Amino acid sequence: MDKVRVGMVGYKFMGKAHSNAYRALPMFFPNSIKPEMKAICGRDPVGLEQARAQFGWETSETDWRKLIARDDIDLIDINAPSDAHKDIALAAAAAGKHLFCEKPLALTLADSREMLEAAEKAGVKHMVGFNYRFAPAVQLAKKLVEDGRIGKIYHFRAVFLQDWIIDPSFPLVWRLQKEIAGSGSHGDLGAHLIDMARFLVGEFNEVIGMSETFIKERPIASAMTGLSAKGSDDAPRGEVTVDDATLFMTRFANGALGSFEATRFAAGHRCTNGFEINGSKGSIKFDFERMNELQVYFADDAEDVQGFRRVLATDPAHAYMDAWWPAGHTIGYEHTFTHEVHELMQAFADNRQPVPNFVDGVKCQEVLEAVDRSIEERRWVSISELS
Amino acid sequence: MDKVRVGMVGYKFMGKAHSNAYRALPMFFPNSIKPEMKAICGRDPVGLEQARAQFGWETSETDWRKLIARDDIDLIDINAPSDAHKDIALAAAAAGKHLFCEKPLALTLADSREMLEAAEKAGVKHMVGFNYRFAPAVQLAKKLVEDGRIGKIYHFRAVFLQDWIIDPSFPLVWRLQKEIAGSGSHGDLGAHLIDMARFLVGEFNEVIGMSETFIKERPIASAMTGLSAKGSDDAPRGEVTVDDATLFMTRFANGALGSFEATRFAAGHRCTNGFEINGSKGSIKFDFERMNELQVYFADDAEDVQGFRRVLATDPAHAYMDAWWPAGHTIGYEHTFTHEVHELMQAFADNRQPVPNFVDGVKCQEVLEAVDRSIEERRWVSISELS
Amino acid sequence: MDKVRVGMVGYKFMGKAHSNAYRALPMFFPNSIKPEMKAICGRDPVGLEQARAQFGWETSETDWRKLIARDDIDLIDINAPSDAHKDIALAAAAAGKHLFCEKPLALTLADSREMLEAAEKAGVKHMVGFNYRFAPAVQLAKKLVEDGRIGKIYHFRAVFLQDWIIDPSFPLVWRLQKEIAGSGSHGDLGAHLIDMARFLVGEFNEVIGMSETFIKERPIASAMTGLSAKGSDDAPRGEVTVDDATLFMTRFANGALGSFEATRFAAGHRCTNGFEINGSKGSIKFDFERMNELQVYFADDAEDVQGFRRVLATDPAHAYMDAWWPAGHTIGYEHTFTHEVHELMQAFADNRQPVPNFVDGVKCQEVLEAVDRSIEERRWVSISELS
Amino acid sequence: MDKVRVGMVGYKFMGKAHSNAYRALPMFFPNSIKPEMKAICGRDPVGLEQARAQFGWETSETDWRKLIARDDIDLIDINAPSDAHKDIALAAAAAGKHLFCEKPLALTLADSREMLEAAEKAGVKHMVGFNYRFAPAVQLAKKLVEDGRIGKIYHFRAVFLQDWIIDPSFPLVWRLQKEIAGSGSHGDLGAHLIDMARFLVGEFNEVIGMSETFIKERPIASAMTGLSAKGSDDAPRGEVTVDDATLFMTRFANGALGSFEATRFAAGHRCTNGFEINGSKGSIKFDFERMNELQVYFADDAEDVQGFRRVLATDPAHAYMDAWWPAGHTIGYEHTFTHEVHELMQAFADNRQPVPNFVDGVKCQEVLEAVDRSIEERRWVSISELS
Repeated sequence: MDKVRVGMVGYKFMGKAHSNAYRALPMFFPNSIKPEMKAICGRDPVGLEQARAQFGWETSETDWRKLIARDDIDLIDINAPSDAHKDIALAAAAAGKHLFCEKPLALTLADSREMLEAAEKAGVKHMVGFNYRFAPAVQLAKKLVEDGRIGKIYHFRAVFLQDWIIDPSFPLVWRLQKEIAGSGSHGDLGAHLIDMARFLVGEFNEVIGMSETFIKERPIASAMTGLSAKGSDDAPRGEVTVDDATLFMTRFANGALGSFEATRFAAGHRCTNGFEINGSKGSIKFDFERMNELQVYFADDAEDVQGFRRVLATDPAHAYMDAWWPAGHTIGYEHTFTHEVHELMQAFADNRQPVPNFVDGVKCQEVLEAVDRSIEERRWVSISELS
Repeated sequence: MDKVRVGMVGYKFMGKAHSNAYRALPMFFPNSIKPEMKAICGRDPVGLEQARAQFGWETSETDWRKLIARDDIDLIDINAPSDAHKDIALAAAAAGKHLFCEKPLALTLADSREMLEAAEKAGVKHMVGFNYRFAPAVQLAKKLVEDGRIGKIYHFRAVFLQDWIIDPSFPLVWRLQKEIAGSGSHGDLGAHLIDMARFLVGEFNEVIGMSETFIKERPIASAMTGLSAKGSDDAPRGEVTVDDATLFMTRFANGALGSFEATRFAAGHRCTNGFEINGSKGSIKFDFERMNELQVYFADDAEDVQGFRRVLATDPAHAYMDAWWPAGHTIGYEHTFTHEVHELMQAFADNRQPVPNFVDGVKCQEVLEAVDRSIEERRWVSISELS
Repeated sequence: MDKVRVGMVGYKFMGKAHSNAYRALPMFFPNSIKPEMKAICGRDPVGLEQARAQFGWETSETDWRKLIARDDIDLIDINAPSDAHKDIALAAAAAGKHLFCEKPLALTLADSREMLEAAEKAGVKHMVGFNYRFAPAVQLAKKLVEDGRIGKIYHFRAVFLQDWIIDPSFPLVWRLQKEIAGSGSHGDLGAHLIDMARFLVGEFNEVIGMSETFIKERPIASAMTGLSAKGSDDAPRGEVTVDDATLFMTRFANGALGSFEATRFAAGHRCTNGFEINGSKGSIKFDFERMNELQVYFADDAEDVQGFRRVLATDPAHAYMDAWWPAGHTIGYEHTFTHEVHELMQAFADNRQPVPNFVDGVKCQEVLEAVDRSIEERRWVSISELS
Repeated sequence: MDKVRVGMVGYKFMGKAHSNAYRALPMFFPNSIKPEMKAICGRDPVGLEQARAQFGWETSETDWRKLIARDDIDLIDINAPSDAHKDIALAAAAAGKHLFCEKPLALTLADSREMLEAAEKAGVKHMVGFNYRFAPAVQLAKKLVEDGRIGKIYHFRAVFLQDWIIDPSFPLVWRLQKEIAGSGSHGDLGAHLIDMARFLVGEFNEVIGMSETFIKERPIASAMTGLSAKGSDDAPRGEVTVDDATLFMTRFANGALGSFEATRFAAGHRCTNGFEINGSKGSIKFDFERMNELQVYFADDAEDVQGFRRVLATDPAHAYMDAWWPAGHTIGYEHTFTHEVHELMQAFADNRQPVPNFVDGVKCQEVLEAVDRSIEERRWVSISELS
């Protein structure tokens, strides 16, 4: 097997990021199986054709059912809005297509489980798009934890802070509508934190959360887009049906304590996706705004020179970096997707499931939903309640 | 009135910090009423005499009741271990002495209320030692919030991270024993965060918390001290009866969401006492390890130069700083106490209560106890339940 | 004109960076003229074919003269080792090809002037590869200076610090040999600083420098590569004929004072390419290791909130960023080349010379050579001496 | 010997800093010999008496000759303006008084040598006030260098950046007048950098410098003060006779290269007194605005976790810190003077010369004057020329 033929549904923010990853892979990871950019799929023919040409896809389809029906496609990449994930995934699995689905897997835990079952039943590969795992600095964090260099973990705290909707006149885009997006900051940003916690610390035991929608009505947007949109003050207003911010605490299965906060109301934070781990032997800090860096502390350093090290994770010793540029030459956001697609192709090469896959998507959804229930019922909710 | 005659109970860590403040005040704030260092009080005559001579007190007493009985004392400064606060304060108030008490006021909310009532009934001045309010950078934060320059507050998140007891062989000092300390990280560190939140954001509405004691037994220490002690591996072991870490979430009365974490198990953090406020017009960040700095973001900065400003709060425009050194010349931890004592003396000059006073001590204790109850009963607890 | 057909000489570090830029441009800047990747040229057929396939070039040539002779090539991209620049550029200009040459233009000032003259005589477009100008944060610095927001410039200080040859057993790669590289840290790293100074501050008036070769002999490398190589301790040794570090001071034509340091012996600095500008109204700081950030200070900020702002130059208000990802999603090293190629294509669209071009290359070389002379003759050297 | 009786000349900025150090020493370093604050000396009786009372001196003198004549004084502390240092020091030495003199020792190298000779001839102790050596983080840097943990030193670069006279209407205070101050940024700020370099790297071999006075005339100040003053736009103007900024390069005796910059025209820098050392085994960075921190890099750290460590130099393992507060509780500018006076008292206890002493003062002056000559004669000047 030397190539995987991809059909992609969605062509906005994530569609662009995925397309770039497919294009970059053969150049920077020439030993990887090559993803062939067969077809891109979307509803608006004009925007679709523009995206096809710009992103470099061979063909296009305006109906995802036709895309799935094509026999020159091996893998369906799903990055349409979240409410469309399930139907596409089920149909694709039924057609024997491999699956690469953006997070969150679905609007509900039940749906995400249905997707996992379908994928397993069909015997296809399935991956979920938790791209932040693939920053080399995060990979380093994983390695330090796995090798026991941080010791037993006591604390994990994570925040995902953005500020793009603080302005009350920012319009009611699809990401602010529950029926399309499923949830707000919680599912969009918190999902990444939950996956990061599972990746680095382990499974969740129980959670309790709180959330708020600070701005309850917004002008209805004239056109839906990814993250940007134009509203107007005299436009008709609609209700914001998702959370602007969600916080929760957790007790992990291994005894560590966790704190999580996702918000779109943190002025000055364009994309602060950060976490800290404190263990018995050391600590680790990460902030995606400085994604090439990892702060690492070792308690057994000589006593007069103990301190957090700012590790610039661009050395050959760091995951993926020998594929790019010499040490000290940084990479950016989009590279996480290239590494993610590299893992996906590697799973084909090794004939195994990629990681993270739909199991991780489901487990993330369990935590999301447990938090939602804990907010609704104002009590601690055990993850096992959702089994 | 040109002087206040002080009798101080306690001569360890806090006793040293208070003594230094009394000594520094006349030199750096010459227009202030002068605190006269009349008498220092402690139980061990040898250690006491050494402290008296070293810190510069005129006389000493080994019995606090005798100290209170002296008619050449106006103010009783209480910084003995927390379990002694109440008895001393009640007796001092009954004797008509003014009160300056370290935090937390007492081991329980009930006790702290009793202390407040006693002070009010006696008509004396009462202050509680939340010294972190008095960092010039924190004063700047307060000013920015009060002047509306940060707008409506959406988020407050605060951590107080230390790492001095991570080693399991660190001994069972008094701060780890509930009957003396009242609580662990929660009352010691969390209390400071709660006061900071009240100072900057406002009153708490409801809370829910979680806590953990990671190391449940420790060697019994041969000698009690402030923060340092020596244990030995073959020493007999005793139970740690306080929390190593406590986290909680809150909803403030003004609608803001709050997140709090106090721990002594955060490797690499000697004294990270930090908070962040996000408002509709801007944000503020502070970390006590860089106490001369405040990070400030204004959403209405020109769109191409928006970013957190690192304000070095050492300019004449910053509170207290014209008393010290030229701009750019930093101050340290101990200065917060000098400023605190300045406020105390100013209250005498203005014939008003100092701020923060026992009311603030009680309100802090309410939150502490509400969190404790929320942990015990695993549910959200409204502060009003404790009224 | 809707495309420019490119023939590129060189396929190592810079060849990879340029190839990526040509590939990325049509996707992220779809309105740009498209560079067609016609032919790649190198001496080793095996390595060349691998690069051709990996980077995505249509054809290859092992003789640059044949490349230049092809009539399906509009632009010659020269990123072979520095000693080859001149011959290729002269021949390409004579054939009427447009020129895009990596820095430094040539091994000597005389050669670089000859190249400029040839390009001007041929009437072709000519660009020189000072890619760091094209970081959005640097573009912001330029805008702030040009708009007078920093005021009159008093100081410019710049360092380019690396540490890749500190180990004495690191081999004698071509970058350490004067006959191929022209110079060491000075021409390789200092050239970037000089161009940055010219871009942001203006022309140099006079200079005085000092330099050192700390490790005077190294093992001869078995295979030449870009920045990495393997030596061995028992390999025969050869003389290092370039500088390990060069420092110089300057007085700019506008009266500002400048300080420059380029070194490959700064342990812990993989690629610290940083500068600071101090003006009458404000200051600017930049460090390429955090290339998405610019530190900006304005003296007229309100007096209680003055401080360097950390501007994350990823907003739509920042140059090039609307082509990439939403605000807060960072870019990396390679993006500077994409922007550089965008400028090159824009020059074709506008029928003007790109900036920076060979004039900038020559002026940079003047300063480099003036510094060399100042070191040799141990005296201040005016740039005008080299006219 | 259990006390040293001090007479101090000068009571402005430095007089305040020294007074505080004398007051603090017995409390925080109780085992030190105690400095007795016998007499303070100044010309203005009103200001003097206020300072005496505020700072806590027993008596005062308006004539330094009378101060020196007193037989109840052991040590003369000279922190009057620089032009007065020499006469006072010579007279004090002649009277057998020990000497503690602020930097720079004198207005000229010749004068400083005369002072050293007088002190040596009189057999008295002599100290010079390079207080920045006494920051615990700087002491750590010294230890790392001395223990060989940074290896052979290749580079030292240092800046002392201030911005207090950028405003052209800032008046002509004494620090801007050559006849009183000797020099401007060079002697005031550069002197500290030179001493730091000698402390950490070693002796200077040769230097070349450049300097500038950006604002050549300023309003004449109505009243002389330390660092602050009020000018007015219609005041008569006088010539600024010192440098606003001075840069120089050096070659150290051990082969390291050095770069120095002192300026009062760096907007946004209130007191950036920073340096970096690069050695064969590691690097060190320091910035006085974060004086409790030292950045340290070790080249032999495990290859995946190499990076500058932010060491908070407040642990018991760090010099002087066990005298103050628990780890993580920072100190400020004034503490450097307390440590300096501790060293002075220790020299009495050990019956040795304190360090730094007048020899260091003279050697610093040699470098200052060599730089001045290099600027005047526009050439490299060897330090040995001034012998």
